Amino acid sequence: MLKVAIVGGTGYGALELIRLMQHHEQITIHSIVSTSEEGELVSTRYPHLKGVVTNTFDALDINKIAKEVDTIFYATPAGVAKSQIEACTEDVQHIDLSGDFRLSKEDYEAWYGLSAPDKDALSQAVYGLSEVNKDAVAKAKILSNPGCFPTATLLALLPGIKESLIDTQDLVIDGKTGVSGAGRKQSLLTHYSETNENVTAYKLGKHQHIPEIERYLSEQAGEDVAITFTTHLIPMTRGIMMTCYGKLKDGVTEEGFIQAYKEFYKEEKFVRVRETGVPSTSEVYGSNYCDIGFHIHERTRRVIIVSVIDNLVKGASGQALQNFNIMNGLDEQMGLTVSPVYP
Amino acid sequence: MLKVAIVGGTGYGALELIRLMQHHEQITIHSIVSTSEEGELVSTRYPHLKGVVTNTFDALDINKIAKEVDTIFYATPAGVAKSQIEACTEDVQHIDLSGDFRLSKEDYEAWYGLSAPDKDALSQAVYGLSEVNKDAVAKAKILSNPGCFPTATLLALLPGIKESLIDTQDLVIDGKTGVSGAGRKQSLLTHYSETNENVTAYKLGKHQHIPEIERYLSEQAGEDVAITFTTHLIPMTRGIMMTCYGKLKDGVTEEGFIQAYKEFYKEEKFVRVRETGVPSTSEVYGSNYCDIGFHIHERTRRVIIVSVIDNLVKGASGQALQNFNIMNGLDEQMGLTVSPVYP
Amino acid sequence: MLKVAIVGGTGYGALELIRLMQHHEQITIHSIVSTSEEGELVSTRYPHLKGVVTNTFDALDINKIAKEVDTIFYATPAGVAKSQIEACTEDVQHIDLSGDFRLSKEDYEAWYGLSAPDKDALSQAVYGLSEVNKDAVAKAKILSNPGCFPTATLLALLPGIKESLIDTQDLVIDGKTGVSGAGRKQSLLTHYSETNENVTAYKLGKHQHIPEIERYLSEQAGEDVAITFTTHLIPMTRGIMMTCYGKLKDGVTEEGFIQAYKEFYKEEKFVRVRETGVPSTSEVYGSNYCDIGFHIHERTRRVIIVSVIDNLVKGASGQALQNFNIMNGLDEQMGLTVSPVYP
Amino acid sequence: MLKVAIVGGTGYGALELIRLMQHHEQITIHSIVSTSEEGELVSTRYPHLKGVVTNTFDALDINKIAKEVDTIFYATPAGVAKSQIEACTEDVQHIDLSGDFRLSKEDYEAWYGLSAPDKDALSQAVYGLSEVNKDAVAKAKILSNPGCFPTATLLALLPGIKESLIDTQDLVIDGKTGVSGAGRKQSLLTHYSETNENVTAYKLGKHQHIPEIERYLSEQAGEDVAITFTTHLIPMTRGIMMTCYGKLKDGVTEEGFIQAYKEFYKEEKFVRVRETGVPSTSEVYGSNYCDIGFHIHERTRRVIIVSVIDNLVKGASGQALQNFNIMNGLDEQMGLTVSPVYP
Repeated sequence: MLKVAIVGGTGYGALELIRLMQHHEQITIHSIVSTSEEGELVSTRYPHLKGVVTNTFDALDINKIAKEVDTIFYATPAGVAKSQIEACTEDVQHIDLSGDFRLSKEDYEAWYGLSAPDKDALSQAVYGLSEVNKDAVAKAKILSNPGCFPTATLLALLPGIKESLIDTQDLVIDGKTGVSGAGRKQSLLTHYSETNENVTAYKLGKHQHIPEIERYLSEQAGEDVAITFTTHLIPMTRGIMMTCYGKLKDGVTEEGFIQAYKEFYKEEKFVRVRETGVPSTSEVYGSNYCDIGFHIHERTRRVIIVSVIDNLVKGASGQALQNFNIMNGLDEQMGLTVSPVYP
Repeated sequence: MLKVAIVGGTGYGALELIRLMQHHEQITIHSIVSTSEEGELVSTRYPHLKGVVTNTFDALDINKIAKEVDTIFYATPAGVAKSQIEACTEDVQHIDLSGDFRLSKEDYEAWYGLSAPDKDALSQAVYGLSEVNKDAVAKAKILSNPGCFPTATLLALLPGIKESLIDTQDLVIDGKTGVSGAGRKQSLLTHYSETNENVTAYKLGKHQHIPEIERYLSEQAGEDVAITFTTHLIPMTRGIMMTCYGKLKDGVTEEGFIQAYKEFYKEEKFVRVRETGVPSTSEVYGSNYCDIGFHIHERTRRVIIVSVIDNLVKGASGQALQNFNIMNGLDEQMGLTVSPVYP
Repeated sequence: MLKVAIVGGTGYGALELIRLMQHHEQITIHSIVSTSEEGELVSTRYPHLKGVVTNTFDALDINKIAKEVDTIFYATPAGVAKSQIEACTEDVQHIDLSGDFRLSKEDYEAWYGLSAPDKDALSQAVYGLSEVNKDAVAKAKILSNPGCFPTATLLALLPGIKESLIDTQDLVIDGKTGVSGAGRKQSLLTHYSETNENVTAYKLGKHQHIPEIERYLSEQAGEDVAITFTTHLIPMTRGIMMTCYGKLKDGVTEEGFIQAYKEFYKEEKFVRVRETGVPSTSEVYGSNYCDIGFHIHERTRRVIIVSVIDNLVKGASGQALQNFNIMNGLDEQMGLTVSPVYP
Repeated sequence: MLKVAIVGGTGYGALELIRLMQHHEQITIHSIVSTSEEGELVSTRYPHLKGVVTNTFDALDINKIAKEVDTIFYATPAGVAKSQIEACTEDVQHIDLSGDFRLSKEDYEAWYGLSAPDKDALSQAVYGLSEVNKDAVAKAKILSNPGCFPTATLLALLPGIKESLIDTQDLVIDGKTGVSGAGRKQSLLTHYSETNENVTAYKLGKHQHIPEIERYLSEQAGEDVAITFTTHLIPMTRGIMMTCYGKLKDGVTEEGFIQAYKEFYKEEKFVRVRETGVPSTSEVYGSNYCDIGFHIHERTRRVIIVSVIDNLVKGASGQALQNFNIMNGLDEQMGLTVSPVYP
């Protein structure tokens, strides 16, 4: 059994890690860390966990924790993981669900408005888009777990870009997300009466996931990629749909396009490619799947690639656990065979 | 006082006409037509109208009705208005909220799968995008009221196209709609447990509003326009947001762009152009407004135009009433000064 | 024209007053008061009001305002109205939408945890349940507008109690409310991800509307009434349903019961009594109606009385405007003929 | 491994059985039956199951199926299970999720409007309220799985009644349910635009779960129990909350009351009794838990018992699987350790 600690135990990312780890045969949750709630029973604060976990919240003493566990998960606001990882002197696996290690120093400081992790830590960090980066993930000590929008977007676009099926310089990406991606912290944008019966386009041109997507698209394309990207908040709790509009290269057919995606993901259990039709978010609700479907518009030669994930699972805690499995040589699906909850 | 009849009295379009007409000083609702409910009190079937209307449902006898009223509104499924209008021998105004008169004969038959209205009726019909087509609307005897997606899309794109600010051959249009646009008829797509907590991209490449949008964009552009267009069903009852992605022409600046839109709509009470930020659907809920805002992405030279309407008001019954006012020389705002219901 | 001021201009109560007053022929909104936003255009903060109101927010200087207007509406948190009314030396009408003047000194201090208004002000205040207290309302200078749950509950129960149809000592009242009743202030209870797809029973035994209901039930019954009362938060924005369970007195028949309610409200435009079936909240959405329906269970001799209102209209701003009309000798319905928004 | 068949494979009950059985170590889903879809891949019709199940839908040939499996689950409309069970000549376990075997012949025929199962089958059937009826369940060949409202109601009331803490003749039960309880069949009541932003009290006095609750309350109380019972449809997909109002017997204290419930359920893993506060439906979402909490109102001596379940899990498929485990001598929790999905 591997022992893990979860830092940030009062947020949705941590709660989802706890849920999924119930199904994992090789994990013991040794510590759930929330300094502000130290000593309180987790199940007192979260009654849905009564009978599920018996932990009390622990204070954050990183080196003490690191001595006791094999892996530390950070489901924390930006800035926390980097400072803890820098302070940690023990040999332990770090899996960071925040954005701290996803960008270059310059981009991180520009988009997050915080000072970047030190060079050494940053250079060690591996970007954990599991399906694409598996070999590097397997050796990672600092795992930088992708953001929710980047996960759904990159899985939708990378095959098309790597196989030279679509133009890298003409990408329009329209995202729709449920509200839980904003976490448990309250704001007017997540206030029920403001969000219910409403669609809002938010953070246009300012979303911190833009540089993350561009960075990894560029890396894989071998050239600079600039995207047009929007995000819309819609009245539901879980789920992300990315509607990606690409320009087909000459000679690419619908059949060839779909076949290339099926080939690209043929070994992957968590990416389900549709031969016909496009997926809905409810079809992956609560699960670690990313479903992808297509529509090709011949007159404009545009392909519409629709990908869906549960933002709290494949877009956060599920992928973190998938990376944990890869890092520890376990079956990649362990703890993640929960089917979608439908309806 | 002008007398009107509403055909299709058991659908949402008719109900919304009834609601708005309560605020109209020059309208008497002479007849609400639903053959299947003939003789039943409207307020028995729709208790929310108790104390509001005292009508009973009438049978559909078009020439009898046409003799008694000044204007007939059709809030009916495709195919009904054209057959009634063809059968009508009286001199009366017809306002059709369905798609019967929106397309050319060829397109109508291809996209609706029904035989088109006869040539004479079709040639008389005026497309009632009120803000753009006011002079023709003023003289119309057969008014073809625009679809919900076309209304929000055309109001968002026409100034940019007519003022040569954006490329007509590179338009991506991503629509999000509440469920009421599908009407009161039940289907799996509008079944609560399927639609709640879910986003669905539907009718990709097959939506009958595509040729309608292309027709009027082309007309105004003076050249053929082909669009990439998607629609997404999201879990709310009312509201449409169109996120339109255009390519800016050389030399166009953000300030110039917004200024052109403000100028274009400066006389229009129902189109509200934002100088900063983009609108949300809740900001027009229950009202006849179309709000439009912008974001310009310099690196890709794309402009994101976001327009919102209430699909049942500006997208259907409100615009129909606006057209009625124009056709009858009344104040365009009569009956339509209902503010948005917020929150 | 009568001039009014609205204090508390950044909350939902104030926004709803502004919406309804657009339809009122005798009101000019002279001032919208929000000290924290002084000088800002109301329509900048609330873009849905662009083109609707041109006011800027004013600071709160009660005697200056009172000199300029006929009536001041307070849509403020508990404690504000009483201190302003006490400080006001001008002769002006006060309409308080908060709880400051609804309870006896003792009860107010016990349930609200604030010091009560001074004796003089408290004794002048008239409880504005419009349908029941019309004569006193007509003469009021300080009008205490009822709470949302009390409005729906009292209208449901008073005819049964005043006509001795139900037992005053056996009342179970189960309330369901949308989230907007909690206002615009953020809390975990109104956080979207917590409230969506969830029902919560809250403030059991502690809701400040309990003593308000008991006070006016007791007054009308002529004896002490103690109720069993619960409130449930459900995932919608607007609407309250009260399901009230009463014990029928001997000899009371279903027909007689319904007839008594019809008789009781026969002159009232805003209370709609059903002869068959029970109402849904959507049937009064956005309107000032209270709809009431019944089911009698012969075996247990219990009557189930279901009443519904829009909490922001009849439960707050609509009733306040209705009271304003009565206080000023205007048609009680002025500004309130907005039909329900359905669906 | 035990082989099972699921009859009714296109409904929500069957889908939920499939989901839960993925976590069950001793079950092989041998057959998923839907005559109308015979031969189609289950995952074609339900893409959320792609990669989860490889079955195709089978036709309904009950004796053929019965020969091949150990247990048949019926997630079918009323009337189907009884006719199949009567036609079955093989020795096999039957678990019926419909109402066919829940009532006496007379009550079934009166409330369901169908002819009752034959006497022999009816007398063999065991009512599967797992926590209360475990010994009988262990020996059952025909298991009648309880309805959703009865499950939540009986678990809330039985301890109070069996321990003589509350009056059996004064019970008011107010239920709130999500929409999925109505299944996948479309109707106006489950049409999104009618149900969203709405609460409806439905089937007052006519709900077929009333005689089911009264039957088992009476059985356990040893005397006739008549209840006052209402159900409300609220805008969410999953979840039931029962707010039960009982009259405390003399001498019963809050502490004693709660203690009695804790004692009653001390061995039960799926019933979680709260010592403070009351549960919300989201706290059991997707899981087999029933959470129960209390509030006592001293002045009226009423106790408010709040119970919550997921209607598709503990209210249907979860409890069916729990009964399957008991019937087959397996760990009662097998396949049911899925934690609530929160948020």
